[in-house]
Amino acid sequence: MVKKKNIRVHVIHGPNLNMLGKREPAIYGIKALEEIDADLKNRANSLGISLETFQSNHEGEIIEKIHDIFNTKSNGLIINPAAFTHTSIAIRDALTLLDIPIIEVHLSNIYKREEFRHKSMLADIVTGQITGLGSLGYTLALNAIAEDINGK
Amino acid sequence: MVKKKNIRVHVIHGPNLNMLGKREPAIYGIKALEEIDADLKNRANSLGISLETFQSNHEGEIIEKIHDIFNTKSNGLIINPAAFTHTSIAIRDALTLLDIPIIEVHLSNIYKREEFRHKSMLADIVTGQITGLGSLGYTLALNAIAEDINGK
Amino acid sequence: MVKKKNIRVHVIHGPNLNMLGKREPAIYGIKALEEIDADLKNRANSLGISLETFQSNHEGEIIEKIHDIFNTKSNGLIINPAAFTHTSIAIRDALTLLDIPIIEVHLSNIYKREEFRHKSMLADIVTGQITGLGSLGYTLALNAIAEDINGK
Amino acid sequence: MVKKKNIRVHVIHGPNLNMLGKREPAIYGIKALEEIDADLKNRANSLGISLETFQSNHEGEIIEKIHDIFNTKSNGLIINPAAFTHTSIAIRDALTLLDIPIIEVHLSNIYKREEFRHKSMLADIVTGQITGLGSLGYTLALNAIAEDINGK
Amino acid sequence: MVKKKNIRVHVIHGPNLNMLGKREPAIYGIKALEEIDADLKNRANSLGISLETFQSNHEGEIIEKIHDIFNTKSNGLIINPAAFTHTSIAIRDALTLLDIPIIEVHLSNIYKREEFRHKSMLADIVTGQITGLGSLGYTLALNAIAEDINGK
Amino acid sequence: MVKKKNIRVHVIHGPNLNMLGKREPAIYGIKALEEIDADLKNRANSLGISLETFQSNHEGEIIEKIHDIFNTKSNGLIINPAAFTHTSIAIRDALTLLDIPIIEVHLSNIYKREEFRHKSMLADIVTGQITGLGSLGYTLALNAIAEDINGK
Amino acid sequence: MVKKKNIRVHVIHGPNLNMLGKREPAIYGIKALEEIDADLKNRANSLGISLETFQSNHEGEIIEKIHDIFNTKSNGLIINPAAFTHTSIAIRDALTLLDIPIIEVHLSNIYKREEFRHKSMLADIVTGQITGLGSLGYTLALNAIAEDINGK
Amino acid sequence: MVKKKNIRVHVIHGPNLNMLGKREPAIYGIKALEEIDADLKNRANSLGISLETFQSNHEGEIIEKIHDIFNTKSNGLIINPAAFTHTSIAIRDALTLLDIPIIEVHLSNIYKREEFRHKSMLADIVTGQITGLGSLGYTLALNAIAEDINGK
Amino acid sequence: MVKKKNIRVHVIHGPNLNMLGKREPAIYGIKALEEIDADLKNRANSLGISLETFQSNHEGEIIEKIHDIFNTKSNGLIINPAAFTHTSIAIRDALTLLDIPIIEVHLSNIYKREEFRHKSMLADIVTGQITGLGSLGYTLALNAIAEDINGK
Amino acid sequence: MVKKKNIRVHVIHGPNLNMLGKREPAIYGIKALEEIDADLKNRANSLGISLETFQSNHEGEIIEKIHDIFNTKSNGLIINPAAFTHTSIAIRDALTLLDIPIIEVHLSNIYKREEFRHKSMLADIVTGQITGLGSLGYTLALNAIAEDINGK
Amino acid sequence: MVKKKNIRVHVIHGPNLNMLGKREPAIYGIKALEEIDADLKNRANSLGISLETFQSNHEGEIIEKIHDIFNTKSNGLIINPAAFTHTSIAIRDALTLLDIPIIEVHLSNIYKREEFRHKSMLADIVTGQITGLGSLGYTLALNAIAEDINGK
Amino acid sequence: MVKKKNIRVHVIHGPNLNMLGKREPAIYGIKALEEIDADLKNRANSLGISLETFQSNHEGEIIEKIHDIFNTKSNGLIINPAAFTHTSIAIRDALTLLDIPIIEVHLSNIYKREEFRHKSMLADIVTGQITGLGSLGYTLALNAIAEDINGK
Repeated sequence: MVKKKNIRVHVIHGPNLNMLGKREPAIYGIKALEEIDADLKNRANSLGISLETFQSNHEGEIIEKIHDIFNTKSNGLIINPAAFTHTSIAIRDALTLLDIPIIEVHLSNIYKREEFRHKSMLADIVTGQITGLGSLGYTLALNAIAEDINGK
Repeated sequence: MVKKKNIRVHVIHGPNLNMLGKREPAIYGIKALEEIDADLKNRANSLGISLETFQSNHEGEIIEKIHDIFNTKSNGLIINPAAFTHTSIAIRDALTLLDIPIIEVHLSNIYKREEFRHKSMLADIVTGQITGLGSLGYTLALNAIAEDINGK
Repeated sequence: MVKKKNIRVHVIHGPNLNMLGKREPAIYGIKALEEIDADLKNRANSLGISLETFQSNHEGEIIEKIHDIFNTKSNGLIINPAAFTHTSIAIRDALTLLDIPIIEVHLSNIYKREEFRHKSMLADIVTGQITGLGSLGYTLALNAIAEDINGK
Repeated sequence: MVKKKNIRVHVIHGPNLNMLGKREPAIYGIKALEEIDADLKNRANSLGISLETFQSNHEGEIIEKIHDIFNTKSNGLIINPAAFTHTSIAIRDALTLLDIPIIEVHLSNIYKREEFRHKSMLADIVTGQITGLGSLGYTLALNAIAEDINGK
Repeated sequence: MVKKKNIRVHVIHGPNLNMLGKREPAIYGIKALEEIDADLKNRANSLGISLETFQSNHEGEIIEKIHDIFNTKSNGLIINPAAFTHTSIAIRDALTLLDIPIIEVHLSNIYKREEFRHKSMLADIVTGQITGLGSLGYTLALNAIAEDINGK
Repeated sequence: MVKKKNIRVHVIHGPNLNMLGKREPAIYGIKALEEIDADLKNRANSLGISLETFQSNHEGEIIEKIHDIFNTKSNGLIINPAAFTHTSIAIRDALTLLDIPIIEVHLSNIYKREEFRHKSMLADIVTGQITGLGSLGYTLALNAIAEDINGK
Repeated sequence: MVKKKNIRVHVIHGPNLNMLGKREPAIYGIKALEEIDADLKNRANSLGISLETFQSNHEGEIIEKIHDIFNTKSNGLIINPAAFTHTSIAIRDALTLLDIPIIEVHLSNIYKREEFRHKSMLADIVTGQITGLGSLGYTLALNAIAEDINGK
Repeated sequence: MVKKKNIRVHVIHGPNLNMLGKREPAIYGIKALEEIDADLKNRANSLGISLETFQSNHEGEIIEKIHDIFNTKSNGLIINPAAFTHTSIAIRDALTLLDIPIIEVHLSNIYKREEFRHKSMLADIVTGQITGLGSLGYTLALNAIAEDINGK
Repeated sequence: MVKKKNIRVHVIHGPNLNMLGKREPAIYGIKALEEIDADLKNRANSLGISLETFQSNHEGEIIEKIHDIFNTKSNGLIINPAAFTHTSIAIRDALTLLDIPIIEVHLSNIYKREEFRHKSMLADIVTGQITGLGSLGYTLALNAIAEDINGK
Repeated sequence: MVKKKNIRVHVIHGPNLNMLGKREPAIYGIKALEEIDADLKNRANSLGISLETFQSNHEGEIIEKIHDIFNTKSNGLIINPAAFTHTSIAIRDALTLLDIPIIEVHLSNIYKREEFRHKSMLADIVTGQITGLGSLGYTLALNAIAEDINGK
Repeated sequence: MVKKKNIRVHVIHGPNLNMLGKREPAIYGIKALEEIDADLKNRANSLGISLETFQSNHEGEIIEKIHDIFNTKSNGLIINPAAFTHTSIAIRDALTLLDIPIIEVHLSNIYKREEFRHKSMLADIVTGQITGLGSLGYTLALNAIAEDINGK
Repeated sequence: MVKKKNIRVHVIHGPNLNMLGKREPAIYGIKALEEIDADLKNRANSLGISLETFQSNHEGEIIEKIHDIFNTKSNGLIINPAAFTHTSIAIRDALTLLDIPIIEVHLSNIYKREEFRHKSMLADIVTGQITGLGSLGYTLALNAIAEDINGK
């Protein structure tokens, strides 16, 4: 893969993901969010991508972050909406503003968990979805966006 | 219609409405929220009504705005709860505090869209609902409140 | 609003609305249909609109009225299908003939009533819907059609 | 196929079918009902069948037409109940009077349309159903009745 | 039971009941509607009740009959809405006009038949319901109204 | 009606009916069960019918009462299963033993009450059902059985 | 109808249809599949159509037959998917490859049978459907394809 | 009960509870939240418990309060999530961080209210639930936590 | 809390609770019902309350115990209906006789268990519900009734 | 199979099974329960098993019988809960006390009957289920328990 | 039981059963299919029955095996359709060809497993069902068929 | 990433995927399966992985391929079950044999398509799922397995 400069990719982490490594490690793994973000930035760097990460427990802040991305231009969005996946029409509406690849990532296999986690309010408006592969999911999503950009 | 002074009407716009004109213009129209608000204030002025508008992407802020309206007195509320229409029991609970006409407005015809938009959590506790008439819906709602007040 | 001549708007009232003022006044108000129609014609007059009203308790007659409207040309239709709102696919099919603004009006807030009244078989094929504002709903619908025509 | 004299077949067209060629031609085709009926009578003639057609937008009239057919005797009924297909238990009840082949015809493929059109209230009491083949469906139904009579 | 003059009771028979004795006698019995009405009038006579019967296959006519009963005063209504039982919100709405005892009668036991016959759109707004007792159901309903009037 | 000797009819009252007159009189009336039974026996007497009544709060006792009726022979059963109406498959199974007219009676209009009361586990295996007519329902049921026996 | 040479139509019969005449003759008739195919080929011949028939009890073989039809070109497909109608998304997916008229045929009236037979996984992607007319359904389907081709 | 020092219990009140005493007093009582908190702290004091209370109308703030409790250690949590009870998977996820007794309290009997209030998204991950006992519910919850701690 | 004499509170334990300590101790605890009752009577004594406990595996006996409570007067009822919680409309009907505080107690958190345990047939007619707090739930219920009585 | 002494197996028959041979013989066969029990005891004898049978129409008695079995020790339970199969959570709860093989037997094929008989409240907590094989089902269940015991 | 020669019984094992002993031994046991078949043939031998077993992972092959059994005559069929139990209407249709006892066997208790395993597409057309008794279920099914044949 | 020898990964493509590039290119892309497999093998080569691909339109063959993988040992499985995703419990059962990472890949975003494609029968038993990223999904799945193996 040929590296390409001036590419910006955004990452949004939803509620409670700031507690990663502390909450239910059997489900979510033991890596803290800071480590995941750091690893991901390294990988982005090596792909010539400038990566910006954001976490919030507030639906409103996530909506406004998406508005910011809309206003400042981005080449791709990786979003793990966590619990908001299943309940937030407002985040769905915000995402429809964007005309870039959006990849929905879930650390755990949501289909192994409570039934209310099987339905994503976002799945039909994003580009694709990666679930159940732990923090590797973010890396794969980054690769997918990079391939997509380079492939064009 | 005889004009009447000292009447206050509030308008609350829900999440993503600050992006009007930018998001899915085929559905929501091309007018920005600022223009809609300005037009509506002009119309209110001509009816002798003092109009205050508010927009937020945060459910909590909308709840607290409703608390403020409860505390400061108002003659009517026009609310376009956007995505929160379908998910927010908390806004519903806040609205039950108010003892004034409340009109729920939707720019688009929500019945032409995804099935999850067909159900409003608020519809049975507001006075009435106007849907599918674009920004004209706000004007009609204002007229309705004015008629109601003058009719008393 | 500048008045405009030669505009025709139709109003269709569904079953039992001929009994308005007699049936459940707590829900539907005490005004008889004749009074509502007279008021509405006055308002139409003042807007330079020629208004024709029609009431029937027969689904078939309403369907054929819509066929007539299709054949003679109209600038807008205001329809309160009453009980047929929830059951008549045939009226829905007739309405799809028309290529003019159609506004569905309900006097009462149908979302405060029995669950079978929450679903309209027409809502997704009309332009917009006004509910819960009593006979004022007709006036607002007329305004909306007038604005729409003048706005073009 | 050997022609056979003195055979009577009835055709009933449901609501809005009098507007064929005017309503949603992409779905229903551009042929008017009169043309369809004329073509069908020609075909019937060539099969030695006397064909009578009837259209109504009134459920009650269709019910009573079926009563007439019961009283005067018929060799087969082709019925396109249009919108009443999905809502009329009364027409269903009337059809159970008849002891002749009944074929339900739909011009459009009702399974490609709104979900409420997927359920026929009549399908389990008629002999068979032909859908999605346009006005040819009537011809096929006529053939089926002719074959059935000749086959006996 | 003491006889009482000047009492008027109305009976409404819904669609297809004019075919009684002809349609599915195993379900509905072999007595024609005229015989049932005649027997019932005899019984009414002996109770000093003036009985008026009405049958229609048109929902709109039944609605307007109920409007007539509202306008001319009646002491009780016996209604067998037949197929309209399960589909007509418009008849339901008309019946709410009346402030007299209303008894819903079904000849057959509707709970032994297709599932769509198990739900009555009227049952919760009438006084009571008698099902499965054949034409005797009308007589019992008449007795009930007579007892109710005499009991007051 | 000609009286006929040696006819036995049974009445079974389900749980809580021994508290009639004490529980929710707005729904069930103020008459005690003893009075209802006495009135009903008088009526039976006048029809030449020997009437036996039974009340129990125990599903098992009602089942065994039905077994007794099976073993000793009866000409008809009037049963108000009260709350067991909606839950007891075991009583349903017992009733299928009997080859006599069975009439299910409910004092209140069960369709005006909680949704779980709208479904009877017995309705499709009894002869008929009378609901919403208070204690008069028992009398009508008795009449129906008497007519049925005399009519044979 | 003018005959036209070089037209190829395919027929696919689904599982258990090789047992026709042996299985539930009350439902499916007594004609063996070979006879039906022979009759149909005669009819095709007389229409100048070359007809190829295929039966399989293996979903995979039916899928691959459809692939073959895609690869070799055909003027129309008549398919009776039998039990696979209600369960096979894979056959549905295969059929979407084809850009020719496809007519789904069912020998029995599937709406008179178990509820799981009321839903076809294919109905919304085929051209039309003929049900309940026995083996005549194939003939009608063949006529429909012939008319369609000649009509173009 | 022996008092025990150094025990910390947290109380979280959800949206609109800051309006207690103002909103629907028939449902929620007339006591303001400040009074309830003051009473509860008195009771806690008498049990040797240090009590901290928190109210927010923002889901995100409640989530972060729970994170704080996780980080600073607590002996028990009493939570009245109000409207968020029925919608917030994010609060549910936050609560799974905690390894202390959690008691869900509702002032009103949520089973007497709208159906959407009957389902709690938290009930299966908390220790227990107290509903319908007004502000006394908090006191009972505090007792339960105190007993639990002393019982260990 | 000031003690008050002459107060009577009843406790009803439903089916299988006589086996407490023997059945699924992981769910229900290891304390036998006799111990729970003894502890609860001690607590009642110290509150000046006379407590009577009752256990039955027979729905009919529980119904009749409630009738007894109705007839002899009581100041409050604590009921753990166990399995009958989810199935008994008859116990529900009996409880509506009582005009005293009724508290429904469940030892286990029913929302952590099989879905059929999530629905209580009684919850909307009792005063309040305490679940998941083991035998402490009874004590809290007793406190609630005592507070309620003293608070009046 | 080697015979083994001192083995005790219990059989519980549910409501209405005492009427076997009298009720719906087409479904349940013509053998009386006494004969079935006698045959089964003979078979048990020949296997060296002491068999005790019990029948009741009272849910409470069946619950207490299961408590007895718990208290006295048993090597296996064969239970035909009849109508209680589909409604009794209380019997389910009682059965969870037992730590022995439990086999649920149904004489008829419950899947050929009313839909409410398709769901067993016990099936997931018993060892296995035998349905549709008439009284032979009991014998097979007995064999299964014997094999299980000998196989250990 | 007297042995009887010339009796043929067939056994069909569905998909993945060739992996028995390898897949999820906690659920299915550790015995390989070959051992089960060998044991069963021994048992058949001792009963004078000729037993033929068949396993396939292909729905089509199982259908055709059933066709073979139809063509060659058999005295009984034992079928464990494994995963096809819940999905195959085609196997259901094939089984209706047979006029011999058919017993559906499941090794595991399917009611203890995922909800989609609770519904059998075959249960209502087979003679009976044995579930949850491991490989012993086959033996019991064989006994049942032997008894049935000898009993005739 | 350090390359590692002797690693074997399997790829299974489900029904109709052999037609890739021919069927609905707007949904599935224009690349043929052979090209996708070739690209993927190149990528595998560069990762030191030996890749074996397999396609079938037969559910039974896919099941047996999975059995083969079980028997020969593999380090990971990438499976795109296509239409079988939504219907095949048999493939699900086969997959539970494997104790290696399994990644379910879908070329299209199944959540943007028909509702019956939103439910995967496999999702809760595989390791993870990648949807909507076209043939890149296979590459990402391969990366994930490689990372997983190297990470151990």
